[in-house]
Amino acid sequence: MAKGKSNTATLKQRDHKTISKLVQLADDVARKALAGREPKLDIPTRTKSNTLWNKKRGILEMGSATAERELFNLNQAKQFMQTMLHASTIKDLVEAGKTASLRGVFYKAKHTVAGTRENTFDTQDESDPILEDLEVALGSLREELHIFAENRGAMVGNITVVDKGDEIDCRRMGSGGYAMPSIVEPDVIQFKKCEAKFVLHVEKGTVWNRFNEDRFWEKNNCVLTHGSGQPPRGCRRLLQRLNQELGLPIICLLDCDPWGHYIYSVIKQGSISLAFESTRLAIPEARFLGIRAKDYKECGLPEAVKIDLTENDVKRAKEILAYPWFEDNRAWQKEIQGLLNNGFKMEVESLIAKDISYVTEEYVPQRLKAKDWLD
Amino acid sequence: MAKGKSNTATLKQRDHKTISKLVQLADDVARKALAGREPKLDIPTRTKSNTLWNKKRGILEMGSATAERELFNLNQAKQFMQTMLHASTIKDLVEAGKTASLRGVFYKAKHTVAGTRENTFDTQDESDPILEDLEVALGSLREELHIFAENRGAMVGNITVVDKGDEIDCRRMGSGGYAMPSIVEPDVIQFKKCEAKFVLHVEKGTVWNRFNEDRFWEKNNCVLTHGSGQPPRGCRRLLQRLNQELGLPIICLLDCDPWGHYIYSVIKQGSISLAFESTRLAIPEARFLGIRAKDYKECGLPEAVKIDLTENDVKRAKEILAYPWFEDNRAWQKEIQGLLNNGFKMEVESLIAKDISYVTEEYVPQRLKAKDWLD
Repeated sequence: MAKGKSNTATLKQRDHKTISKLVQLADDVARKALAGREPKLDIPTRTKSNTLWNKKRGILEMGSATAERELFNLNQAKQFMQTMLHASTIKDLVEAGKTASLRGVFYKAKHTVAGTRENTFDTQDESDPILEDLEVALGSLREELHIFAENRGAMVGNITVVDKGDEIDCRRMGSGGYAMPSIVEPDVIQFKKCEAKFVLHVEKGTVWNRFNEDRFWEKNNCVLTHGSGQPPRGCRRLLQRLNQELGLPIICLLDCDPWGHYIYSVIKQGSISLAFESTRLAIPEARFLGIRAKDYKECGLPEAVKIDLTENDVKRAKEILAYPWFEDNRAWQKEIQGLLNNGFKMEVESLIAKDISYVTEEYVPQRLKAKDWLD
Repeated sequence: MAKGKSNTATLKQRDHKTISKLVQLADDVARKALAGREPKLDIPTRTKSNTLWNKKRGILEMGSATAERELFNLNQAKQFMQTMLHASTIKDLVEAGKTASLRGVFYKAKHTVAGTRENTFDTQDESDPILEDLEVALGSLREELHIFAENRGAMVGNITVVDKGDEIDCRRMGSGGYAMPSIVEPDVIQFKKCEAKFVLHVEKGTVWNRFNEDRFWEKNNCVLTHGSGQPPRGCRRLLQRLNQELGLPIICLLDCDPWGHYIYSVIKQGSISLAFESTRLAIPEARFLGIRAKDYKECGLPEAVKIDLTENDVKRAKEILAYPWFEDNRAWQKEIQGLLNNGFKMEVESLIAKDISYVTEEYVPQRLKAKDWLD
């Protein structure tokens, strides 16, 4: 199979690059040590203060601040050792052509340091940030380091994808759908035939079921995805690839509450904690179709859809209102203010109170036709 | 397509049965009212005291106790009304040939009672138990009432399934897999060609990824499933159908901790809250392959795999030790006692500390060959 071969070739090329970066990192430490100088690493800083809003590109970016991680520093020696340990595990993984979970990598590195009672790692909470440090220090995606997270989300619609050489026709995936993997880089997933004109991304699997059952993707020629709430990296990356490589608009149907607005914000601009990944995750063109604060009146929704905002909701809404990318955006200022003025939130699932298929047969098609969405 | 037709036929037959049960329930209430008698319903009791351990069948069963739900009783009038409301929503769903989520059904029924300030339902916590009441009162599965929960879990392996007429070759599902739907009844999912000799069910998606990446299911001719932790009803039902209809042994690979033991217990015997469903969910033949308390020594596992038992773990382990189905079982008494004696738990993912693919290439194949499992 020509396809199989070319996958392997791509994989090897990417992996060689990762390995050479790892070797360079280690060589640098060794060189310093052998020269009698202190081994240290430069780790880019992943904090809010080092996160910049790039208005022109419409994404969050990591600034240029870095912090030194020194071996001869009581506060940093443990983290230095942890970083080197994980770098070594990753090299093993990449060389073996295998992947491991975040938890797996933690276990791989966890042990008692010989001759002491000190553990390399005590909990996974210590381990995950070190892996992110390595991502930014090496300039490699977690996926390129062969590390995956829990799989979440599913996909159906007018597209065929190739996943590790297997051709998956998302038009013929029944009620279950294709489970989106955690690693969706081009060497694993390729796009084949795609008639779809856009992607409808919904928040939850239960909403996705309604749209799939009503064969919305067939009637509206689209791809239908969900991310089980806050979409994981694999889901966000796949949406971005569908947007960038196939030019499909990403249209989000999320709850009318601060959580829904936050999910949209992360899909669109990226997040502070993963700002170094925005280039490969954020989708500045993503659109927010609903649920909108105006819908209660405009759609004549019944009282049943209202859920009172909690104090925490109000606090969160105000925080989101002040995000620089929403602050600049009059439509979004109005939207979030509308939510606060309403005093209640609304979930996509509540539209069932009007009719079982109101959301798939009227609400979404009408909004799409009217191009009535927030950018 | 003959296949499509026969699906529809099955669906209709099952749905007619459900509708006639719903009509009978309503007729009975109406008849009593018209005869000047008090409308009431008999609802089987879903409590621990009405749950029986059927040793011969190896499953938990619901006893015969029922409670009356009366309209003219201040404590029961609201629940009576809620039961009738949900019954009506379900009739609409079944007649429309559509399904709804638990949350959707809640929204469908939620409204302010005309002329009062009283809501039919305030939260979903009130709604879900009423749906379970209806399941037991009607003797119909939730799936037969056209209600689904969040989808969870994935499947790959040497089997082809037909899902709503779409043929899904689980041998060609790439790294993502087939996302298991919430409703997997025979009118939705049928089994076609299956070479697999057993099902390996693992706890988490991350472990499933390791087995899928190593193509364990291909090398060992099996089906590979996970349920994202405690498997949801859809996953349990699919496993039971694979066991009963295709005769495949269900072999579970779970963590060596009270949570892993509890998951196994639920897969095997059913749960107290869903005892009325055991006939359609429990798999008395399910086997527990590992992780075993003896593994630390037997497999020469490194110190890293140990996680100290918490006080709560010890409490839970002792509770599980006293379950009648474990109380009778010497091997399980020894196993749980072994966990308590160890004083630590072990996760499947920790086996990576020995080697990346130790679990897929050595641990599981060796145990399978030696038939070294707990029944």
